[in-house]
Amino acid sequence: MNNEVYPKPIQKLINFYKKLPGIGEKNAERMAMATYTQDDEELQSFADTLKDLKKSLTNCTICGHLSESEICSICANENRDKNLICIVEDDKSVFKFENVGNYTGVYHVLNGLISPIDNIGPENINLSSLVKRVENLKKPELILALKSTVEGETTTLYIKKIFEKKNIVISRLSYGIPMGAEIDYLDIITLDKALEDRKKISE
Amino acid sequence: MNNEVYPKPIQKLINFYKKLPGIGEKNAERMAMATYTQDDEELQSFADTLKDLKKSLTNCTICGHLSESEICSICANENRDKNLICIVEDDKSVFKFENVGNYTGVYHVLNGLISPIDNIGPENINLSSLVKRVENLKKPELILALKSTVEGETTTLYIKKIFEKKNIVISRLSYGIPMGAEIDYLDIITLDKALEDRKKISE
Repeated sequence: MNNEVYPKPIQKLINFYKKLPGIGEKNAERMAMATYTQDDEELQSFADTLKDLKKSLTNCTICGHLSESEICSICANENRDKNLICIVEDDKSVFKFENVGNYTGVYHVLNGLISPIDNIGPENINLSSLVKRVENLKKPELILALKSTVEGETTTLYIKKIFEKKNIVISRLSYGIPMGAEIDYLDIITLDKALEDRKKISE
Repeated sequence: MNNEVYPKPIQKLINFYKKLPGIGEKNAERMAMATYTQDDEELQSFADTLKDLKKSLTNCTICGHLSESEICSICANENRDKNLICIVEDDKSVFKFENVGNYTGVYHVLNGLISPIDNIGPENINLSSLVKRVENLKKPELILALKSTVEGETTTLYIKKIFEKKNIVISRLSYGIPMGAEIDYLDIITLDKALEDRKKISE
């Protein structure tokens, strides 16, 4: 009986919502019913946004970031330091850094990581454009901000090798203890990295 | 800087998702990004469902429940006992009972509760159709399944008064201890009701 409880359109909404991260059956049901009670105007506007979502967004021709125009608002911003490039895996990382709000440089979005197991080589990610981009800069500095998985480390190493030869300053995010974490609950690898990357605080 | 982090279409999705119950800023952001990564076909279908949502659903002319056709699937079901009517506040209650799956009668959806403070009288809820509906039944039985708030109790009493005179069997959901609840954590009113509504178990 369970699968005929909801009218088809409501069930369709539930099925869509369930595909989103962190949304279970119960939540999806509640959200679908709440969607039904929204103003029709609201629904039409949401539907229109969804209909044109893929068309209305493109990748920035400079950095590869999700953008409404050919050049994203970050690359187009005159106040951003174009010589400081933070290399990230995806758009979500850019949004994360922008939410923090302290970074004044620009980004380069790889839209993937090198993963030989999955047949993803350097040519399959947004990397060749980075090489060209850096060539045109006077005093480039690269910050590698990739995750600390096998794929992330492989990509970091690969990029490091390319630019090291060209005498370009490269750094990576520091590893260490997350703020507020209890030492005795930390995993061994993180603690080992924190020890290795220790920072001198004496004068 | 924070309010220009996302491209407009993504921000629109975030704003919509935030309106849904239980969805905070962080969740809405994650959901919007996940929405963007869905297949375009998926998005079009979801958008179409939203566009026609209000048009594709109506209220059952018999019971008032949300339905794709003039008569809802429950009222149209020959196996349902048409003499047993469960009176509920809204569609969500129907879905809840249907999810439980043990109820074999039909429903009557009031789409509201009597609330003098909010100027909602008996004529503002789907009640007159219930009176007509019951008149045509041979051996009607009404189950009042309204919430135990002032509005719920007022509506229950009002409906009880109408049908009591007509010698119709009326019952309400039992009050009591929720399954699995600890006695010493229960509120006083629930405990008082559970005592009042106690059920004899000796033979």
